Amino acid sequence: MNANNHRLQAPNHQITKSPNPLGITMGCPAGIGPEIIIKAFAENPEWLLAPPAVVIGDMNILKRASEVIGIKIPIKSWMPGDQLSGQAVYVYNLTELEPEDILWGRSSAATGEASFKYVIEGIGLCQKGVLSGLVTAPVNKLGFKLAGIDYPGHTEILADQTDTKRYAMMLAGDKLRVILVTIHCPLRDVADSISTEKIFQTISLTHLSLKNEFGLNEPEIAVAGLNPHAGESGMFGQEEEEIIAPAIEMARRKGIEVKGPYPPDTVFYQAVNKSFDAVVCQYHDQGLIPFKLIHFRDGVNVTLGLPIVRTSVDHGTAYDIAGTGKADCASLEAAVTMASEIVLNRLKNSTETGQ
Amino acid sequence: MNANNHRLQAPNHQITKSPNPLGITMGCPAGIGPEIIIKAFAENPEWLLAPPAVVIGDMNILKRASEVIGIKIPIKSWMPGDQLSGQAVYVYNLTELEPEDILWGRSSAATGEASFKYVIEGIGLCQKGVLSGLVTAPVNKLGFKLAGIDYPGHTEILADQTDTKRYAMMLAGDKLRVILVTIHCPLRDVADSISTEKIFQTISLTHLSLKNEFGLNEPEIAVAGLNPHAGESGMFGQEEEEIIAPAIEMARRKGIEVKGPYPPDTVFYQAVNKSFDAVVCQYHDQGLIPFKLIHFRDGVNVTLGLPIVRTSVDHGTAYDIAGTGKADCASLEAAVTMASEIVLNRLKNSTETGQ
Repeated sequence: MNANNHRLQAPNHQITKSPNPLGITMGCPAGIGPEIIIKAFAENPEWLLAPPAVVIGDMNILKRASEVIGIKIPIKSWMPGDQLSGQAVYVYNLTELEPEDILWGRSSAATGEASFKYVIEGIGLCQKGVLSGLVTAPVNKLGFKLAGIDYPGHTEILADQTDTKRYAMMLAGDKLRVILVTIHCPLRDVADSISTEKIFQTISLTHLSLKNEFGLNEPEIAVAGLNPHAGESGMFGQEEEEIIAPAIEMARRKGIEVKGPYPPDTVFYQAVNKSFDAVVCQYHDQGLIPFKLIHFRDGVNVTLGLPIVRTSVDHGTAYDIAGTGKADCASLEAAVTMASEIVLNRLKNSTETGQ
Repeated sequence: MNANNHRLQAPNHQITKSPNPLGITMGCPAGIGPEIIIKAFAENPEWLLAPPAVVIGDMNILKRASEVIGIKIPIKSWMPGDQLSGQAVYVYNLTELEPEDILWGRSSAATGEASFKYVIEGIGLCQKGVLSGLVTAPVNKLGFKLAGIDYPGHTEILADQTDTKRYAMMLAGDKLRVILVTIHCPLRDVADSISTEKIFQTISLTHLSLKNEFGLNEPEIAVAGLNPHAGESGMFGQEEEEIIAPAIEMARRKGIEVKGPYPPDTVFYQAVNKSFDAVVCQYHDQGLIPFKLIHFRDGVNVTLGLPIVRTSVDHGTAYDIAGTGKADCASLEAAVTMASEIVLNRLKNSTETGQ
């Protein structure tokens, strides 16, 4: 632990070259994706002057979103390779949806198919280097299902399309970063789903990301235990000694600065108070309960381990408020900002190492 | 949910009669208990003028604590029935420990036996009505073990001595209250340890406590689910539908205002933002992770369901810093304040209902 108060702030970027724009996938056309994109551009005048991203989605749906929430903003067409002269939201128009067919808050085969197409195309453009990274607005599982698309969410699509075997989900904000060893796992299966290998891989991915993507020279990682009081010397569970501690030891032998397993009920307070740059968590709610308490509005989901840069909003399609203009664009703003920083840090790192 | 911003504030107390003092048990003589007691009195001049509590412990050890932390404060002897004229810390001196035999941070049969004695005597004085309630400083499990005392902690002693079958642990602060359905349970056993009956009892105890002890007329309780996203309609676990929802339904039929099961990763944010007066949690870290993030210094542990009033500090004996004066007395101060409020609310309630 140390008292470095600047630990979680991004370092100054020395921009080595101006990267290509990011892509923002519009997500489910019936959800809040379209309107938070319009809002984010409208609320950030510098985004209109020098667009950090193009939108991959549907022009008609974005125009409708702009109308129903009462934000007048120029929306222009963009094609891969086009320059962005500013003063508009640029859209790579991949679908021609009829607004009257797409009801706010209602999944259909069409919404599922469209939102899947945006992601696939976005990944491809990142792989070709046309886009510098991907920021995803929320998709809807039911829409995917109705369209016959068998993916639970973005992360699995990204892993498949980029042929990535080792990846992890980080939730990041300026006060706290958490990384999950298991994700959508029923609580009763968590203890049998963690393994020394998985925890070691998660620690390694976290270390690499903090160095290369978040620009931290000497990142310090904490690992949370699984049981109350981190097992209290085996009284409340054996996993800390048998599974978690060996993974930490493996990572330390590789030169990674990582400590634990810590009692889960105090490690997040320590991390928020700058003792650690990130906390590796054994299960979904262990990480998301503290993260959402601290970063309810402005949390960002980052996929670690991918060849391409990918951040995402930290919320769903919010069908109950879609089309009302109530949706908050803070998470999208943070996701775009974080993706830009990651792109620059990766670039700086690859330039320095000559890769 | 509602926007009642005063929800978590204590109502104005109309004091019906002046209650007897509280008792503060000194806890383990080798831990931080003695020094946080001295500190709390020294930092609250009104406690010296009109002592809210007497200390049940050891005069010599308290004097030593006062010396090593450099706080000069009068310490006087008290016997049950004595009046408190103020200007001192009053001590019911139950043991005659030799300071040289009690090393800071070192458990022994003597420390275990002594700390057990303080609690037993404190409970007895509450039952006789000599004390109005009990505030406990931390005991040490190893000390109990060395003294051949087979209790994991205070709560079980209190339940046994008062012949209480249904009790629950609440962690309370001015921003958040959480109540645990299971406590020191290994994570792998949690799913099989919860039951509809247990959850219903915990909701009932919470409702009664919020009304009678925290003075809330129409308390609103949230129940957290067990699994990620509260199971997401069974995709990530069945316990929400099969075990938790029926308990909520039972409680609602008894007229209790309770909702859920909510996704664990957002319910605490809602509670902190005044949508709920308390959150019933399925397991230790589900409740303690958010609670300690919000109330790291000033959390209070309250035992619900006992015939006597009992609050406790929300930390352990902290052997590593015992005797250094570094220990923070904020949790003890909050525990005394909360016990006083609970005593007054119980009294007001029993007067109103003629009990």
